[in-house]
Amino acid sequence: MEQRLSFITLGVKDLQAMKEFYVDKFGWKTHHDENGIVFFKLNGFILSLFPVEELAEDATVSADGQGFKGFTLAICLNSEKEVDDLFSDLGSKGVKVVKAPHKVFWGGYSGYVADLEDNLWEIAWNPFLELSPEGNVLK
Amino acid sequence: MEQRLSFITLGVKDLQAMKEFYVDKFGWKTHHDENGIVFFKLNGFILSLFPVEELAEDATVSADGQGFKGFTLAICLNSEKEVDDLFSDLGSKGVKVVKAPHKVFWGGYSGYVADLEDNLWEIAWNPFLELSPEGNVLK
Repeated sequence: MEQRLSFITLGVKDLQAMKEFYVDKFGWKTHHDENGIVFFKLNGFILSLFPVEELAEDATVSADGQGFKGFTLAICLNSEKEVDDLFSDLGSKGVKVVKAPHKVFWGGYSGYVADLEDNLWEIAWNPFLELSPEGNVLK
Repeated sequence: MEQRLSFITLGVKDLQAMKEFYVDKFGWKTHHDENGIVFFKLNGFILSLFPVEELAEDATVSADGQGFKGFTLAICLNSEKEVDDLFSDLGSKGVKVVKAPHKVFWGGYSGYVADLEDNLWEIAWNPFLELSPEGNVLK
């Protein structure tokens, strides 16, 4: 199995509100927005929003679930200042700051925000991660 | 906020077993494996395995959670045959097949497997998705 991924799909309760969150707060552009599913094209793959009941049904599992979803998403920026600036920007737009950024034990600088349905986004500066000009992880 | 992602972190109960699953069953190579965290470098970002209690603590949220995690991961291949072949391969290695592949309403061909802790991976052929030679989503 090739070591890559094509989609991350978030099962959502309110598709329209979640789409608006990613468009209005994160400033992202949709790649596809019809037939009850929304795609955002990220670096080499799609972040998809799809109603949680339909996602569970597609996978033939129960949609019942509560509490911590057991995963986080992260974007790494190029400096502590970029992290601070993004937190300021998102905070001013009313995005829920779960953990304000601060220096962390592994040598980086990181905090967390949540989208409208408690999917957690870490926003970090990681001095050990080499990024391409397009923001892909090189090593 | 740039429209990209650097990490997906899966909160795991058994780090060693989950690492072995991705190495032995998916055939992936680790990128980093020390200090209680495991990285796999995918296409432009890292899939990370980290103990779920530590992940929740890092995000300052409760680690309590049960049932459907509300997300799926997917890899798109180049044909129905590639999907069938990968299901055969994974099935022969004892990977849990959640949904055997079949034609789906949106025009593709798809099924699901689960890792040891019920993270769902869809394996699909999507005739509408254009992939680069490296497997990045082009459009």
